[in-house]
Amino acid sequence: MNEFVVTPWEVKGEIDYQKLIKRFGTQLITDQLAGRLERHGVDHWMLRRRIFYSHRDLVWLLNRYDQKEPFVLYTGRGPSENTHLGHLMPWIFLRHLQDVFGTKVYFQLTDDEKYLFKPGLTMERARWFAHENALDFIALGFDPTKTVIFSDLDYAKSLYNIAVRVAKKVTYSTTKAVFGFAESTNVGRIFFTCMQSAPAFLPSEEEGKNVPCLIPCAIDQDAHWRITRDVAPLLGYYKPATIYCKLLPSLAGPGKMSASIPETSIFTTDEPAAARKKLERGFTGGGVSIAEQKRLGGKPEVCSIYRYYQFLFEPDDKKLNKIYEECRSGEMMCGECKKRLGARLEKFLTEHQRQRARARERLDDFLVMD
Amino acid sequence: MNEFVVTPWEVKGEIDYQKLIKRFGTQLITDQLAGRLERHGVDHWMLRRRIFYSHRDLVWLLNRYDQKEPFVLYTGRGPSENTHLGHLMPWIFLRHLQDVFGTKVYFQLTDDEKYLFKPGLTMERARWFAHENALDFIALGFDPTKTVIFSDLDYAKSLYNIAVRVAKKVTYSTTKAVFGFAESTNVGRIFFTCMQSAPAFLPSEEEGKNVPCLIPCAIDQDAHWRITRDVAPLLGYYKPATIYCKLLPSLAGPGKMSASIPETSIFTTDEPAAARKKLERGFTGGGVSIAEQKRLGGKPEVCSIYRYYQFLFEPDDKKLNKIYEECRSGEMMCGECKKRLGARLEKFLTEHQRQRARARERLDDFLVMD
Repeated sequence: MNEFVVTPWEVKGEIDYQKLIKRFGTQLITDQLAGRLERHGVDHWMLRRRIFYSHRDLVWLLNRYDQKEPFVLYTGRGPSENTHLGHLMPWIFLRHLQDVFGTKVYFQLTDDEKYLFKPGLTMERARWFAHENALDFIALGFDPTKTVIFSDLDYAKSLYNIAVRVAKKVTYSTTKAVFGFAESTNVGRIFFTCMQSAPAFLPSEEEGKNVPCLIPCAIDQDAHWRITRDVAPLLGYYKPATIYCKLLPSLAGPGKMSASIPETSIFTTDEPAAARKKLERGFTGGGVSIAEQKRLGGKPEVCSIYRYYQFLFEPDDKKLNKIYEECRSGEMMCGECKKRLGARLEKFLTEHQRQRARARERLDDFLVMD
Repeated sequence: MNEFVVTPWEVKGEIDYQKLIKRFGTQLITDQLAGRLERHGVDHWMLRRRIFYSHRDLVWLLNRYDQKEPFVLYTGRGPSENTHLGHLMPWIFLRHLQDVFGTKVYFQLTDDEKYLFKPGLTMERARWFAHENALDFIALGFDPTKTVIFSDLDYAKSLYNIAVRVAKKVTYSTTKAVFGFAESTNVGRIFFTCMQSAPAFLPSEEEGKNVPCLIPCAIDQDAHWRITRDVAPLLGYYKPATIYCKLLPSLAGPGKMSASIPETSIFTTDEPAAARKKLERGFTGGGVSIAEQKRLGGKPEVCSIYRYYQFLFEPDDKKLNKIYEECRSGEMMCGECKKRLGARLEKFLTEHQRQRARARERLDDFLVMD
């Protein structure tokens, strides 16, 4: 197997998610823990299928919750491109958590990060994408009375005042070890992890007492949270808990969906019929010929189309299993399978874009600024 | 001669100001340049006596000014202690420049810096000192319609939005070379120079066009401005010009007045009679006995009391020269000389404290916040 890379800014190779747990030192979501979440009312395919598969301190968080100490949810987005389906995935799960636990949600748009990490990106464009990406988040149906959205550049005073506290406890040496920074790294990048830490502590600052925080996000963000969690007790805060999902694969097969390769990613702003076309060009586990596939069956375990059903478009486990079996047995050909998924995708995007247009008028109900 | 150290956070040994010019690569204020400033109306002992003795791009700035392109003035203060006379010195000159050129003044209180660089200092205390130090600045008589004061923590949004631009152009390697940062340096310190750069570009952002900026300050701040000036053209801004003063020596003799050694520094908040007592214990250039001093004369060139006359308390060059001669000739003894200076100091502090109390009610006329 090829060596794989997973950092907040680079994902390369075929990810071994079990190895990643060891590499990062996170915990597996056990059947027992998943059961506990389900008893609380979490009823979501992303948990059942262990797309959300790892965590830090989730048991601690639930213990606190059971002792009547409510938590907040925090996640974010680095706005350098339009939103694609891979970004949407954890937000859909987050939305479900908000419904189940009735929690407040903090959504951070790290326009500063994207400006600092993308050589050619202007600040104006990063800020513009921040607002565009926020529309996709709002379109998922978050409750405006319980959801706060901010961009780092627009909310810099509130964030910097916490980030400076974090920064006093983080050495260059730590960021070098965690992120692989070098002498030539710009100093904004080196500081940035403190800005990403800040919202985990913001609710505690706002309420004047420690508030537990759960961060649902893709596992590539763990590097930041390792630092945040190390610093938290030094500042008298709780360590934020995290719950991590796998990355939605690219339509080209292994590797995460990447906004920088638009042909193999489906954006929420793609014209639905065009998105369907991208899907139809997707990598599958089909045979070299129809005859062979009918005889030997397909390989759903390597198929990007199957992944889309599994990660996003088929919430019903029985139906998903049926798709799997029909493929394995050679009963269903790739063309037919793509056609079915394509129809769902078109429907999904059409509805999402309708909600997204509505969200544009509601942006001010969610955005906070200094 | 002992090796000396001059950085924004450490001044050690007896400073050779001519060597410092070579070390930093700044320019000497020549007689010609001083004459040009005087023709513009600058009439100040700190220029005549070359207490302000070095600069960067001051000729360029005056050329712009002569072409009807007005400049702004920018300086600051790191608020970790009460203000002492050494801090006041460049502000007094700044005040004169504002009067002469009618320029707008930006005054930055770097409470974030002090929090990040002083291990035991809390953010609350740094912010408190920021406001206390602002009173001393206002007490000098700045025009509230032309003077803007802000603390980094309170004005973080405006500053961070510029600082991030600067940060994208500054590598860790640069800060390491300029400031001597190491692996164990906290990342807030590494980022900080970008926050100090920001106000130099703030007027350009506010006016939507490049505005020349002159920074009068003590020469220990040059390290920051080297970075600021290198980055400026990369962001399309003018390089800020600087004009540098020497550091007010400690009452203990060589070495700058340091707020961390309160016995040898005079704070603006010292009770005037107590301040006078500190002065009377100051290091002088007197002889070992009155008899010897009458015979051989004193050494004003090493005397901290004489420095106070020269830097702050005797604006009249003829009178200063008389003090010098009376000392050299053995005509005036240290006791008498200290008594005269003590009386001036008491008078100065009494009046300053009166203005400072008034300033407390006027703070809001000057402070800007996000």
